[in-house]
Amino acid sequence: MTDIHLKGTARTDNKLWSNDEFEAAIQAVGAERYHDKHPFHKLLHGGKLKKSQVAAWALNRYCYQSAVPRKDAALVSRTFDRELRREWMHRVLEHDGYENDDGGIERWLILTDALGLDRDYVQSMRGALPATRFAVEAYVTFVREQPLTIAVASSLTELFAPKIHKERISGMLEGYDFIDDRVMAYFKQRLVQAPRDADFALKYIKEHAATRAEQEACVDAVRFKCNVLWVQLDALHHAYVNGNVPPGAWRPEDLGP
Amino acid sequence: MTDIHLKGTARTDNKLWSNDEFEAAIQAVGAERYHDKHPFHKLLHGGKLKKSQVAAWALNRYCYQSAVPRKDAALVSRTFDRELRREWMHRVLEHDGYENDDGGIERWLILTDALGLDRDYVQSMRGALPATRFAVEAYVTFVREQPLTIAVASSLTELFAPKIHKERISGMLEGYDFIDDRVMAYFKQRLVQAPRDADFALKYIKEHAATRAEQEACVDAVRFKCNVLWVQLDALHHAYVNGNVPPGAWRPEDLGP
Repeated sequence: MTDIHLKGTARTDNKLWSNDEFEAAIQAVGAERYHDKHPFHKLLHGGKLKKSQVAAWALNRYCYQSAVPRKDAALVSRTFDRELRREWMHRVLEHDGYENDDGGIERWLILTDALGLDRDYVQSMRGALPATRFAVEAYVTFVREQPLTIAVASSLTELFAPKIHKERISGMLEGYDFIDDRVMAYFKQRLVQAPRDADFALKYIKEHAATRAEQEACVDAVRFKCNVLWVQLDALHHAYVNGNVPPGAWRPEDLGP
Repeated sequence: MTDIHLKGTARTDNKLWSNDEFEAAIQAVGAERYHDKHPFHKLLHGGKLKKSQVAAWALNRYCYQSAVPRKDAALVSRTFDRELRREWMHRVLEHDGYENDDGGIERWLILTDALGLDRDYVQSMRGALPATRFAVEAYVTFVREQPLTIAVASSLTELFAPKIHKERISGMLEGYDFIDDRVMAYFKQRLVQAPRDADFALKYIKEHAATRAEQEACVDAVRFKCNVLWVQLDALHHAYVNGNVPPGAWRPEDLGP
């Protein structure tokens, strides 16, 4: 198989991929550009960041976490397929919580609390980087507007997530004295949920992408989603590692004037 | 209070209504045009319809039931307010079901089964009246596009629903030998859920409608929603009581050629 490293929608033939070829093309996107390869993540997981830099990451990443139920509800709102809605709905519940479960967003706020950030300030998203907000809302819009199968495919960075979460949990627990088991609860929960969600979405797109063009659009959706994640780390790196904090964004005291 | 019978958005002053005036204006819409006043409902609840006419009602009403989770997920997908999402989400779950609960749509299909309709045909919506489909999708679009408070307000026909459901349960159980307790399960469940949902939505709009114009837009939203319901019964009445079934719509055998 030579055509899985295609850029964009260029293609060498129109033959439908087998399920294995289709899955390999998606996996190849992860190998090429999932954000575990970003220098900021290497610093984060390697214990190389100051507390304020980890806080900047958590503050910005809150925007992403809190957008997840909106994008998943957008997908639910678009489909006439009750079984798909029933399956997808639990993603919303995982993040927003349901009944006695406080949900993943609340678990994220335990992390931002531990990093010394004011909860109202985090939730206001006023201090987040504009690039973060744009990337996150681009994702919500993508899921709201793209054909359903392509929208489902954009979730498939979850295929690559358990590895990064494992590295993150061990690396951050080891590297930072301000991180403990309790504040890593969000990621521990995702170790269980992400593989189940990814399996469903992968099966769904294999069943529903009926042409090679649709298959390639699914692979592009995973590329798009990797870009959503990468842009967030680029913006963090530029602002909080290289010291170019844009006007209005959160400015930790130890960053200097 | 003399201005609660305003038509459309005409108004005599710009003063913010008190909560009681606001609620009275909404209740007045129900008194004027909720679909319990429609001649078709009087026939339905009075045991005056043939089985095939009840079936036509259930077949068409399926379109409405099955659109409810889409319109509620659309609302959830639009709000940054996690508490509102958590509260609204249970509406989606009530209709689609969750875990061991099959949900309200499944309960509706027990009714259409009992009326002798093929389940796949019902779910395909191919035999529904076009006017039904248009009205229902207008509702989904309204909730997707209107300002959030107005979208919330459009659910408030639920204030008037328990009365109609009680009449429907007793009237239909009494009036038709093809209706029993089991097939009325949908409505029995709604007797519990609708008041809770309506209380929340009413409280929400009282808190969030900050100008008289917004309050009146909320009242208009309830009018709009009444129209969505009324149009469906007009179409049923024209097609299946007066005998003008449009091309492509379900044609019961006893209707004649």
